[in-house]
Amino acid sequence: MADIPARTEIGVTTGPIRGSKKVHVACQSGSGVRVAMREIHLEGDEPPVRVYDTSGPYTDPDAHIDIMAGLPAMRRDWIVDRGDVESYDARETKPEDNGQLGPDRSGGVDTFPNVVKRPLRAKDGANVTQVHYARKGIITPEMEYVAERENLGREFAAEQARTKLAEGQSFGAALPEYVTPEFVRDEVARGRAIIPNNINHPESEPMAIGRNFLVKVNANIGNSAVASDVASEVDKMVWAIRWGADTVMDLSTGRNIHDTREWILRNSPVPIGTVPIYQALEKVGGVAEDLTWEIFADTLIEQAEQGVDYFTIHAGVRLPYVPMAADRMTGIVSRGGSIMAKWCLAHHKESFLYERFPEICEIMKAYDIAFSLGDGLRPGSIYDANDEAQFAELYTLGELTKLAWDQDVQVMIEGPGHVPMHKIKENMEKQLEACGEAPFYTLGPLTTDIAPGYDHITSGIGAAQIGWYGTAMLCYVTPKEHLGLPDRDDVKVGVVTYKLAAHAADLAKGHPAAQVRDDALSKARFEFRWRDQFNLSLDPDTAEDFHDQTLPAEGAKTAHFCSMCGPKFCSMKISQEVREFAANNPNGVLGNAEDVKPDAAEAGMEEMSEKFKEEGGKLYVPAAE
Amino acid sequence: MADIPARTEIGVTTGPIRGSKKVHVACQSGSGVRVAMREIHLEGDEPPVRVYDTSGPYTDPDAHIDIMAGLPAMRRDWIVDRGDVESYDARETKPEDNGQLGPDRSGGVDTFPNVVKRPLRAKDGANVTQVHYARKGIITPEMEYVAERENLGREFAAEQARTKLAEGQSFGAALPEYVTPEFVRDEVARGRAIIPNNINHPESEPMAIGRNFLVKVNANIGNSAVASDVASEVDKMVWAIRWGADTVMDLSTGRNIHDTREWILRNSPVPIGTVPIYQALEKVGGVAEDLTWEIFADTLIEQAEQGVDYFTIHAGVRLPYVPMAADRMTGIVSRGGSIMAKWCLAHHKESFLYERFPEICEIMKAYDIAFSLGDGLRPGSIYDANDEAQFAELYTLGELTKLAWDQDVQVMIEGPGHVPMHKIKENMEKQLEACGEAPFYTLGPLTTDIAPGYDHITSGIGAAQIGWYGTAMLCYVTPKEHLGLPDRDDVKVGVVTYKLAAHAADLAKGHPAAQVRDDALSKARFEFRWRDQFNLSLDPDTAEDFHDQTLPAEGAKTAHFCSMCGPKFCSMKISQEVREFAANNPNGVLGNAEDVKPDAAEAGMEEMSEKFKEEGGKLYVPAAE
Repeated sequence: MADIPARTEIGVTTGPIRGSKKVHVACQSGSGVRVAMREIHLEGDEPPVRVYDTSGPYTDPDAHIDIMAGLPAMRRDWIVDRGDVESYDARETKPEDNGQLGPDRSGGVDTFPNVVKRPLRAKDGANVTQVHYARKGIITPEMEYVAERENLGREFAAEQARTKLAEGQSFGAALPEYVTPEFVRDEVARGRAIIPNNINHPESEPMAIGRNFLVKVNANIGNSAVASDVASEVDKMVWAIRWGADTVMDLSTGRNIHDTREWILRNSPVPIGTVPIYQALEKVGGVAEDLTWEIFADTLIEQAEQGVDYFTIHAGVRLPYVPMAADRMTGIVSRGGSIMAKWCLAHHKESFLYERFPEICEIMKAYDIAFSLGDGLRPGSIYDANDEAQFAELYTLGELTKLAWDQDVQVMIEGPGHVPMHKIKENMEKQLEACGEAPFYTLGPLTTDIAPGYDHITSGIGAAQIGWYGTAMLCYVTPKEHLGLPDRDDVKVGVVTYKLAAHAADLAKGHPAAQVRDDALSKARFEFRWRDQFNLSLDPDTAEDFHDQTLPAEGAKTAHFCSMCGPKFCSMKISQEVREFAANNPNGVLGNAEDVKPDAAEAGMEEMSEKFKEEGGKLYVPAAE
Repeated sequence: MADIPARTEIGVTTGPIRGSKKVHVACQSGSGVRVAMREIHLEGDEPPVRVYDTSGPYTDPDAHIDIMAGLPAMRRDWIVDRGDVESYDARETKPEDNGQLGPDRSGGVDTFPNVVKRPLRAKDGANVTQVHYARKGIITPEMEYVAERENLGREFAAEQARTKLAEGQSFGAALPEYVTPEFVRDEVARGRAIIPNNINHPESEPMAIGRNFLVKVNANIGNSAVASDVASEVDKMVWAIRWGADTVMDLSTGRNIHDTREWILRNSPVPIGTVPIYQALEKVGGVAEDLTWEIFADTLIEQAEQGVDYFTIHAGVRLPYVPMAADRMTGIVSRGGSIMAKWCLAHHKESFLYERFPEICEIMKAYDIAFSLGDGLRPGSIYDANDEAQFAELYTLGELTKLAWDQDVQVMIEGPGHVPMHKIKENMEKQLEACGEAPFYTLGPLTTDIAPGYDHITSGIGAAQIGWYGTAMLCYVTPKEHLGLPDRDDVKVGVVTYKLAAHAADLAKGHPAAQVRDDALSKARFEFRWRDQFNLSLDPDTAEDFHDQTLPAEGAKTAHFCSMCGPKFCSMKISQEVREFAANNPNGVLGNAEDVKPDAAEAGMEEMSEKFKEEGGKLYVPAAE
């Protein structure tokens, strides 16, 4: 393969995705906000295709990448200019922040050298969340950025947009013809979308998660007590966003947990999510019943200062629901859910996350961290799908959503899990009802349990469907699910699988701009522009590699045939002949199906037959340009 | 990896799939018909799980495999005993049967040594189709075999079956509680199911394709003018059925086309389908307009005598429909469709396949070959989905279905292609309406065009959905789709992807027996029976391989943890504690969600808390057996 991207010395992949370049599109308001996109160049006179770009500066040859320094703080001025934040001395890092055994320096991993010592928080009495601004009628630069980004650089063509919207089936979503900053503001104000961007993560490029925007994809990374290290997690983060991850969750549980997060945050242009209870558990030596509100709250502050953009908090795992999991096939499969279940059972008390929820909101709004209300009782098997425990928790998440909204805190809701196809829609419908249309963020769901090793696919099937029904972000599943930790290749396969599922959902919903890329690729396919086909695909490297396995010669890239039929016979060629014939013989076009009568159709046939033969009538004419 | 299966000297994989053995189950009628199934052995007292087995004698250690001799003719006596067939001198093989350049012996490929010189056909005036017998009220051994096979060896548990059926959503299908031979007969008689088993393919194990049976999967193989050879095609066939292909289509187009088919048929325990027009085109030097009815009919006889079980025939590509494809993004992408379009345009005549359809039926019924009415105008891109050309052809296929049924010939209908999710259901509904519930057999459909290299997944999403809606058989798509010819690995990935899609569809429809395997695997997962998890999965080799990449030690196979969380913390363990606690403390179970009042829930908590602590309350207790 040509064009192997360069790797920096600490091992992340940089350089453009083949056939494309980074462009920065100025927002139409003239505010000066410029939005990064990727532009795919095509052959001949074909117009370039702009696509959503999550890869940040890593694919920009003009950007200087220095992992030791972190990315530029692009949002810093926007945040400071609002005049509602203050800087202060950060919480002291403690040894147990890096796991119960403290940091492990044996792998050459050290503290990030460029740690912010004075983070930002809301001034006393202020609220710095995007939903707070939105409800006050303020359009932030973040909202402007999102609006331009969601339009994929298209010009507004109202008629085209209306046609697509009318053809799609959106199950009650309200996709706009064109995304304006005001539309973004309104969706955020209603709580139907969130823009997860902690004020201490100014490196992040704003993005929206909501039913009326493009369906997003999250990739999970993170080391465990058994395997993986900090450097490979940073590498996986950069790799995941290269292929399209819209957000990344750092689910680390082992040592160096604080440091790993810092390295990831400072180098991430996408929002980072975490599950703070994992770290809190480390701080109490892994003994769930030793968890306290104080340790948990301290962990929230620690991560808030680092810049985590959304927190998964399993505040819906209430004491009364725990016994509902007893008759399940697979009990409680969420780690966070089982930690809280354990705590509740041991103390026989209501969850402190549930009881202290308003206090958690106070922390969230001081940094603009979004809730990702965890589904600690999600089903872990087809057998357990849509059961009492799951829906009891969901309705509690709805109750908590309202509490968060009361304090102008952004919220999304996590969803399952393992669900057979006929039970998926009920999940979406109940979530919309229970949670007031707060964005739904689901893991898959897996539509069968019988294919370990292929659970990116069992879940991609469910993800495409629930995305179509209205889920705003799909949490990827890799081929290693249930079997081991994903490596670099698994991360890529997981991300690409989920990107295609999200895109299939966008198409089905009738997103006005989604089909542009399909059409461009199909046109390239029909016209035998092989390089354009590769470059327009979600994974150009794999597409070209697969092509070359059968027809490696460079000449085959411009050949007007492929290895399926070979040069002698090609259905695409024949189709081109049909098209040319129809264009040259308007009388030969026989009207639509209902009008067709075999006898009428044959009128004038003799004449046209002669004409066709005159024009060549050969099978192996060169394909049209 | 342990247990690499043995390969015979000409290179097919034999030996049991790990953890399982071949069993032969006697039909309940006492007729002596015995049905092959695969039984997965589980640890401890867990009952074995029986699964549908398409692999034929190749996975039976007691079977003697000799590729040069072919498989035993298991159906021969059934066919002959009906007294309605005669043997006769086969058509002479001609050089052009092996492609326009004749056979190519350079690769060491020769004529199959055990060719049947005197094939069978119906006696004059007889009709030997399964639908003919069915309509006469005859339950054939083939129908008996199918009935037992579809039940997956389960005992009939009426209540359980009714529950599953009631929970599923089958969109008007009529899945039975239990499959009886009479049910099979009735479905075949109505034309809602087919049993494609040419009387000259007595090696085949009977199987049904119909909406009220398990969803089936077809794998395409076949060489082209550019690549692949006979030996590797035989190997791919055996490999495809090992992983679950219910039928195999030989789509060869290059040289040795006749011989390749013979090798495949004599060694295939599953029905084989072909597209006879491919070979006919070879016989006229690749010039579509030189095709004649005589050459085509001769090709049908040639392949009928060899034993092909179903023919794809693009008789719905009528002259008046061809110009409808002119404005498409990707024209006509079906090879057979474009050949016929070319012929129609060149001659300006109606398709000879359409005009001679009743004569084709005469041939089909003399050998019991099923129609697979080809969708020559299927869409090749999202842009072209559900267009006029496609549906014009579909309604013609419905008309032809009735003609075939008039002659008691078995029929299924091919479907698309490239279809976004919101347009899939319309395909199924129109097909049911137009074709009187004849089985639908679709290629995917692909739900987006933008992921070459991942089209097994873009199409697996569509396949699962259309299977749920009622499609009877799903034609696989491999990762090489649009890019090259699939190799052995691609065939496996394609088959497994489609098996999981078909299974997801069975679950969603409410098939009474489908969830047994999911439940067994999930139970094994919950109980940390790692080997059982691997063995119950569709691809045990990959599952174990993936597991071993993170935790290769043999001890990890029996460890009560996995690499995702590690030994220190495990949500599955906590769930087991929850379950044990609930079992030991019936008063601790707090009723269902509606009843729960936080205050009430806390009643008696102090007492239970003490009890829990007395029982250990430790995090790291050994998992339950």
